[in-house]
Amino acid sequence: MVLVVRTELRLTAGKVAVQVAHAAVMLSERAAAKEASLWSAWRAQGQKKIVVDGGSLEALELLDRAARSRGILTVWVEDAGLTEVPPGTRTCLGLGPARATEIDPVTGRLPLF
Amino acid sequence: MVLVVRTELRLTAGKVAVQVAHAAVMLSERAAAKEASLWSAWRAQGQKKIVVDGGSLEALELLDRAARSRGILTVWVEDAGLTEVPPGTRTCLGLGPARATEIDPVTGRLPLF
Repeated sequence: MVLVVRTELRLTAGKVAVQVAHAAVMLSERAAAKEASLWSAWRAQGQKKIVVDGGSLEALELLDRAARSRGILTVWVEDAGLTEVPPGTRTCLGLGPARATEIDPVTGRLPLF
Repeated sequence: MVLVVRTELRLTAGKVAVQVAHAAVMLSERAAAKEASLWSAWRAQGQKKIVVDGGSLEALELLDRAARSRGILTVWVEDAGLTEVPPGTRTCLGLGPARATEIDPVTGRLPLF
C-alpha cells in the first residue's frame, strides 16, 4: 500500500498522519471486499505501508490514472476543511495494496515523505 | 479514535504517519468485530481521527490502562525495526473509537501532534 501525500499543501505532520490513516482504513476495507486474496497476502506480510511525497494535485491525478489503468485500487482523501485547508480539498491519494512489481512502476520514483 | 504517538522516539514525519495508519487500520477492524454499533456511528460521522503527542512509553502505558479500564479498545503498534528503531519497538498507541465524553478524560489534555 502506498499513500501519496499532496505535499504542496504544506500540512502539519499531524494533519498528514490523519490523512494517511484515513486513506489506509478506506483502502483496507475496499481491498477486503474487492481483492480478498491480495488483501489477505498484504495482511499476512505485515500490512506494509509506504508514505511518499507526491507534490501537486496534478501529479496525484496522474498517479491515480496510472494505477487504475493497471487495476490497482485507489482512494482519495478529502479533508473536512475545519482547520488548515478549505472543505473538500484532496489531501492524499492511497494506492493498493498491490504486489511491488505492479505498484513500483507507478510510485517507485517518488521520494519518501 | 485517538492515535497517541510515542514522540520520545523522534521518528520522522513519514514514519509517524505509517505508525498512525497501522493503528487506525487495526483499531477499525477490531471495532467492526467487537463494537459494531460504536464503529458504525464513528464511520457515519466521518471516521474522526486525532493524532496526539504522547511522550514516553511509560506515559502511553498509563493511557492504555486508563482506556481499558473504561472499556475503550486499545492497540499497540510495534515497528518491524528495519529503519529507525530496533525491532519490536512500541511506536504508537491507538484508542477507540469511543464517544468524546468517554475518551476525553483519558487523552483530552494531550497536545496535538
